[in-house]
Amino acid sequence: MRAAALAWPLGEGPAAVLRRVRRPTPGDAPTPALLEALAEARPPGAAVRGVGLAIAGFVDAPRGVVLQAPNIPGWRETPLAAEVTRALAAPVHLVNDANAAALAEARWGAGRGADPVLFVTVSTGIGGGLVHRGRLWAGARGLAGEIGHITVEPDGPRCSCGGRGHLEALASGWALARQARQRTGQAYTAQQVAQAAARGQAWARDLLQTAAAVLGRALADLSHVLTPQVIVVGGGVSRSGPLWWQALRAAYRDGLMHPAFGAPLRPAALGDDAGLLGAGLFVAAELAQNRV
Amino acid sequence: MRAAALAWPLGEGPAAVLRRVRRPTPGDAPTPALLEALAEARPPGAAVRGVGLAIAGFVDAPRGVVLQAPNIPGWRETPLAAEVTRALAAPVHLVNDANAAALAEARWGAGRGADPVLFVTVSTGIGGGLVHRGRLWAGARGLAGEIGHITVEPDGPRCSCGGRGHLEALASGWALARQARQRTGQAYTAQQVAQAAARGQAWARDLLQTAAAVLGRALADLSHVLTPQVIVVGGGVSRSGPLWWQALRAAYRDGLMHPAFGAPLRPAALGDDAGLLGAGLFVAAELAQNRV
Repeated sequence: MRAAALAWPLGEGPAAVLRRVRRPTPGDAPTPALLEALAEARPPGAAVRGVGLAIAGFVDAPRGVVLQAPNIPGWRETPLAAEVTRALAAPVHLVNDANAAALAEARWGAGRGADPVLFVTVSTGIGGGLVHRGRLWAGARGLAGEIGHITVEPDGPRCSCGGRGHLEALASGWALARQARQRTGQAYTAQQVAQAAARGQAWARDLLQTAAAVLGRALADLSHVLTPQVIVVGGGVSRSGPLWWQALRAAYRDGLMHPAFGAPLRPAALGDDAGLLGAGLFVAAELAQNRV
Repeated sequence: MRAAALAWPLGEGPAAVLRRVRRPTPGDAPTPALLEALAEARPPGAAVRGVGLAIAGFVDAPRGVVLQAPNIPGWRETPLAAEVTRALAAPVHLVNDANAAALAEARWGAGRGADPVLFVTVSTGIGGGLVHRGRLWAGARGLAGEIGHITVEPDGPRCSCGGRGHLEALASGWALARQARQRTGQAYTAQQVAQAAARGQAWARDLLQTAAAVLGRALADLSHVLTPQVIVVGGGVSRSGPLWWQALRAAYRDGLMHPAFGAPLRPAALGDDAGLLGAGLFVAAELAQNRV
């Protein structure tokens, strides 16, 4: 794990970012590393109007509590907003990192000009977010957008969350790594599976195309419910190359019940900064008394 | 099929409805029957400020076009808003009937006071709608809310839309009727299946509980994506009795990855008027230049 921080003038775009800090974070005691990153990112003498924290986990946004973060065991029912507010004497807003990235991609990235925007990030896990009329669909507790946890295969493998046959258990980075180990008996990262597929190895091509197709069908299902105008797809696995994208788009098209429900699938544009930029947007909107 | 019409003063609640007309509608030539119902519902001498049509089909709301309506073959790529506008000389807005019912249930029915509200109607087919901050999540073409067409069993039976293993193909009224015929070799309606279950017939109890459980898991999946504060469940199948509701609620709870994603499942409160009342709300909002 690692903590990252950006400092930038309230209300301005990505080009105005003043400082950018990244540091490794121990999963069992993440808060001190986070506070250090925030302190280092703070420009000397600058007034801190607000702090937005993009968290890779389930976030009860209105209460400012991290309910559970699969890769950060040190946060569980943790009132993080209150803890950071005490340290920084500034209002602190928590937001799920994929929700935040959705907001940034809709405003400045691959979803710019489209409405609504569905964002999905496929990395170790699968997350996402929905943006309609420039605002996040936050849900009742700011928990919305957990696209990785819809059931795509009722009798499928166990998910990181304990569920069964979830999208994340079949199409994420860790799912690809698990499938590669089962298929070859050797350890592979998702990136290595993509590299093996690019070299033409049949097993890797098969795994990559199957995982992309499962995601494509799930995005078609979600299009029936949400009819986004654009779907933005980001995260490390989305950089697996044309084989993955072709399988994704073919399965998406096949899964639509009528072409009118379809949307273009576009690669994310903001890279690793998306979550932090979105957290900043979230803060700006909260400060404007205009809850995102 | 049948057409129904309500007349009521703009902006007022369900209690203010002035007239209520229902008439059978031939599926191959539905427009004349619709126009007759509208003419009959119109209070003599009243100015018509706007007309809202709640349509059981895929509706391209911004263009006012019925793309496809499974039970109304006479409407296909039909510019219905323009046709009715010509006949009535008033602005006409099309809205999907389940979307409209969602809006009415959120404003005046079982979703009142909650935000966001997810509405699902389980009758012959399965439809739905999402309401956030009092407004419909309409999607890019006003097509959103087709909850019946998410894949719940990849190798499952064919759906009315041509897809495979959709929720509607496993948990709707026509799915129950099909399953009963397969199980018993005799013709049953969904209502007769519910009656047989209430009499204690094992095959009917099994079908009803299985269908409700499939719906419950799908609503849990959607809760991960949307985190509604309340889920309102309506339609004829939702009146199948406590056996159906118990199986629905148990599967919903089991399907949640964390209790914080859960919402109460409430029976719809507005009955058959919900779609028409919602179409009226939609018109009022459109007239207020405040697109729903």
